Amino acid sequence: MDYLVKTTKNEQFIDITSLVDETVAKSGIKDGMAVVFVPHTTAGVTINENADPDVVTDILSGLNKAFPEKNGYLHMEGNSHAHIKASLMGSSCNIIIEHGKLKLGTWQGIYFCEFDGPRNRKVYIKVI
Amino acid sequence: MDYLVKTTKNEQFIDITSLVDETVAKSGIKDGMAVVFVPHTTAGVTINENADPDVVTDILSGLNKAFPEKNGYLHMEGNSHAHIKASLMGSSCNIIIEHGKLKLGTWQGIYFCEFDGPRNRKVYIKVI
Amino acid sequence: MDYLVKTTKNEQFIDITSLVDETVAKSGIKDGMAVVFVPHTTAGVTINENADPDVVTDILSGLNKAFPEKNGYLHMEGNSHAHIKASLMGSSCNIIIEHGKLKLGTWQGIYFCEFDGPRNRKVYIKVI
Repeated sequence: MDYLVKTTKNEQFIDITSLVDETVAKSGIKDGMAVVFVPHTTAGVTINENADPDVVTDILSGLNKAFPEKNGYLHMEGNSHAHIKASLMGSSCNIIIEHGKLKLGTWQGIYFCEFDGPRNRKVYIKVI
Repeated sequence: MDYLVKTTKNEQFIDITSLVDETVAKSGIKDGMAVVFVPHTTAGVTINENADPDVVTDILSGLNKAFPEKNGYLHMEGNSHAHIKASLMGSSCNIIIEHGKLKLGTWQGIYFCEFDGPRNRKVYIKVI
Repeated sequence: MDYLVKTTKNEQFIDITSLVDETVAKSGIKDGMAVVFVPHTTAGVTINENADPDVVTDILSGLNKAFPEKNGYLHMEGNSHAHIKASLMGSSCNIIIEHGKLKLGTWQGIYFCEFDGPRNRKVYIKVI
């Protein structure tokens, strides 16, 4: 399934766990794996804490300190830092499915990671 | 299969390759993929060198220099650096199975990555 | 399928998208997932921009600034920075297959990431 994700900030983590949950439920698959794939090169996907929103803010600020926007890059678009962060978070993640449900930890949420927004983005979710 | 991993230090890489090996052997699956998933937000999983233990020590120290414990974070628990490292290593990894065995490189081991221990942790391993 | 990748520089990203494309085509599988796995501990795999070659140059330079070659490491071989980068990029990536083709974004290419070359390297590609 293909979904649209509309980001509203330059850098932003958006919780897409419910999107993945629904896709698994619709698939009817009880035992397998969900693959979440982001078809962009300045956005990624990661799994992290879904309780305190400060955590994702801190992930963004920690990445910015290690990979600042201005850093002697060659790429003329000026968004090389976003490309680096996309590769660090990764373009896909896997979640095990058991009894028809995502087998996530208590505090885990699945986040779409925008590093060069705001933009209209896509996410692909496949259940295997 | 669900396993318990008991970490004994604040930051620690624990080689869980034999756990994944055994799970593949028990499954009877000869051709497919093993998925290792860590259901925590301050721990992750990665594949790296299993020969010289200095390598994993150096990975931890390199990550600490780029993402120090004190770095102006907002999250009150004081473990934002651990959340960042968990996302950098990732919550899952895939290993191809051929002839009933994990197809790892000579020097590759699968590591549970503790970034906020010591704790009792879980690892899920699924063979597809 | 196992492939050889010959790297020619100390650090280098090599676009292996066509290798993955061909493997999917040969498999005859129309709907599933391709897994790319790198069996090395100082090399990895990532998906990023395939248009402007400056992007991958900038990813390498950004990683080098955050994880310099000399950084007080213990490992005697002197390539701990390469081990760290390998874990950051990851040893595998997944791409969804639909209608017999890789479902990549417009600007996405799959890159073998050499961090301690030049060497003769291997890549495993499995279609599920």
